[in-house]
Amino acid sequence: MNLDMIYLDMIYLDHAATTPVKPEALQAAWPWLTSDFGNPSSSHELGHRSAVALEQARATVAKFFNVRASEVTFTSGGTESDNLAIIGLALANPRGKHIVSARTEHEAVLSALDFLERMHDFEISWLELDEFGQVLNFETALRPDTTLVSLMIANNEIGTVHDIAHLTNEAHKVGALFHTDAVQAVGWIDLDVKKLGVDALSISGHKFGAPKGSGVLILRAGAKAEPLIHGGGQESGLRSGTENVAWAVAIATALELLAPVDEEAQRVARLRDEFIQKVQQLVPSAKLTGHPINRSPNIASFTLQGVSGEAVLLELERKNVIVSSGSACAAGSDEPSHVLVAIGVETEIAQTAIRFSLAHETTADQLDAAAHALAESVANFI
Amino acid sequence: MNLDMIYLDMIYLDHAATTPVKPEALQAAWPWLTSDFGNPSSSHELGHRSAVALEQARATVAKFFNVRASEVTFTSGGTESDNLAIIGLALANPRGKHIVSARTEHEAVLSALDFLERMHDFEISWLELDEFGQVLNFETALRPDTTLVSLMIANNEIGTVHDIAHLTNEAHKVGALFHTDAVQAVGWIDLDVKKLGVDALSISGHKFGAPKGSGVLILRAGAKAEPLIHGGGQESGLRSGTENVAWAVAIATALELLAPVDEEAQRVARLRDEFIQKVQQLVPSAKLTGHPINRSPNIASFTLQGVSGEAVLLELERKNVIVSSGSACAAGSDEPSHVLVAIGVETEIAQTAIRFSLAHETTADQLDAAAHALAESVANFI
Ligand SMILES: Cc1ncc(COP(=O)(O)O)c(C=O)c1O
Ligand SMILES: Cc1ncc(COP(=O)(O)O)c(C=O)c1O
Repeated sequence: MNLDMIYLDMIYLDHAATTPVKPEALQAAWPWLTSDFGNPSSSHELGHRSAVALEQARATVAKFFNVRASEVTFTSGGTESDNLAIIGLALANPRGKHIVSARTEHEAVLSALDFLERMHDFEISWLELDEFGQVLNFETALRPDTTLVSLMIANNEIGTVHDIAHLTNEAHKVGALFHTDAVQAVGWIDLDVKKLGVDALSISGHKFGAPKGSGVLILRAGAKAEPLIHGGGQESGLRSGTENVAWAVAIATALELLAPVDEEAQRVARLRDEFIQKVQQLVPSAKLTGHPINRSPNIASFTLQGVSGEAVLLELERKNVIVSSGSACAAGSDEPSHVLVAIGVETEIAQTAIRFSLAHETTADQLDAAAHALAESVANFI
Repeated sequence: MNLDMIYLDMIYLDHAATTPVKPEALQAAWPWLTSDFGNPSSSHELGHRSAVALEQARATVAKFFNVRASEVTFTSGGTESDNLAIIGLALANPRGKHIVSARTEHEAVLSALDFLERMHDFEISWLELDEFGQVLNFETALRPDTTLVSLMIANNEIGTVHDIAHLTNEAHKVGALFHTDAVQAVGWIDLDVKKLGVDALSISGHKFGAPKGSGVLILRAGAKAEPLIHGGGQESGLRSGTENVAWAVAIATALELLAPVDEEAQRVARLRDEFIQKVQQLVPSAKLTGHPINRSPNIASFTLQGVSGEAVLLELERKNVIVSSGSACAAGSDEPSHVLVAIGVETEIAQTAIRFSLAHETTADQLDAAAHALAESVANFI
């Protein structure tokens, strides 16, 4: 098998939308897509081998998050993990029907909450946010009947980071469960679940070199959840369906390949800061979105006042720089980013947003070229 | 890329549990796992290419089922498709809270129904069945408040086939929607959805040469369903989450590779009948389960009176014949097959069941060897 990637001469700075699959992850998955095709539930040897591979993958994931293997559930992606956590915890813990969250969350979280509101009479309190997307009124939003808090670690559009360990501690004081969407945090922020203290944490494989269609939900022992998908009782009954063994192995391998966050996050944050400085120097109208310091290393997003983000995206693409004009999910629609609107950016300005998102492999040269390409692209429109 | 399968010297007759991935399906998926890794929601060319591949896959699937592309939803497997159909249709069509189904359905269906009973006050009527698993009282089970019927086309353990076109017609007379689990029917029974008349149909890729983690739900235009997984609005809002483009391409390719059912089903049914005869000749205690004629070509399951199915499975495995002692999902547990219990087989007898399930590639020689291996294995225990 030849797993060489076709190396592209593009400068891909849209890793928050999706990443290439790491060859090692695909290679590790390969046997489970070919010779070792057994169903993990089967009693014969071919089935056993799949079951063992699945449990090894689970142990690897558990180690990464510093949890027990029984606290790892494989899912089909970040959206499913978010839905399973939020809907699952809310329906299985009806001590109250109040949930606290923020309008800067991903659509997966917002729509799961909307479902609970529409179909199960939950009440959602939306946190007040400052212009950077930081939470202002957490303690006062919590109530005795708060069942669940859902707040992401790092925002996928503006990069702003919440202090999850602190917020979880506050939530637990009133007896509420805490779920965090860590989809954009993998590889960038320490995800020791014991340190974070959260009850549930969602990730998505395709954001860090595992394939699309792979995901994990960490659910701490003791936190009960109602499944979304019922059936044969796989994944301890939390997520039925014949297991996608290959993608479980792939996501575990991709996690294992990540460099320890401490130095790596600092290194990339420096690259990103240089990039932000260069952009602001070359494009005076560019305004950084999100918090200037409390931000994930991988995201630098700007509004460009007077120039459509979508138009700049196409211009940049002609120069082989691949970026996003907002979140991928919102792309294609004319709607301004709900995240920017939630932090008080005017609709017209929100439509000028452009997001650069880095990988561990991103180089200073690539970022330098991207900053110059942005300056030229914007100049085209003025 | 070398996609050669490692050819195994085993006689694999457990295709109803899972099948090897067809090299062509993996090959077709390959670009979408490597160079073409774009997110279909992205505005740039890399994203567009993924979106186009996804829509081509959708068109291929639509053609196979004789439906419109907009009626095809990609899911993560058969269990998810069943849950989405049943829970989705029930919650979005609350004209009544009555559902008709049968206890011989797969756990995915039974557990989804259990969820609707527990959490949403639905009432389930369980159809009366004869000893072959055929429905006895369909018309009288239907009520004016029946919202949904869920009945599989071909049973995964005993192979018995329901006359879905007829039953759907009856259900529609009282205004009920009809869902069918066609997971075991793909490649064996004509799945022209217009002829079947059903409102929803579920399939699972890994049962016919696509990878585990791929599935499809066909939902006819006009049949509204509440999603299980909410978010960015992918798959027309019915199934949010970044699309697993590679597995969509793989499942479409695997469907395309299937031979037309007419001749193929007859050819394999003849092989299976010869096998059944040989087994009954060599193992007089073997009793065929399911209907002798109204059965899917791929399944031949027997009870063996006095010999544990699990023990025979292991004995057969020593002779390189790989089978199942019931459904894969129930395997590992000591519970007798719920399907056999539902058609009136005594618990003790149910525990002697052994299932042989064929592929299109299965040969007469393999089946002959399997029949002899079974006879020798059973003789060991007598
Ligand atoms: C009839 C039937 N329905 C549903 C399923 C579940 O599909 P999946 O294995 O993709 O979860 C299976 C297979 O286990 C099946 O045989
Ligand atoms: C913060 C966040 N949450 C959830 C998701 C959804 O994950 P997936 O793409 O696997 O459905 C994404 C990515 O789109 C994301 O950025």
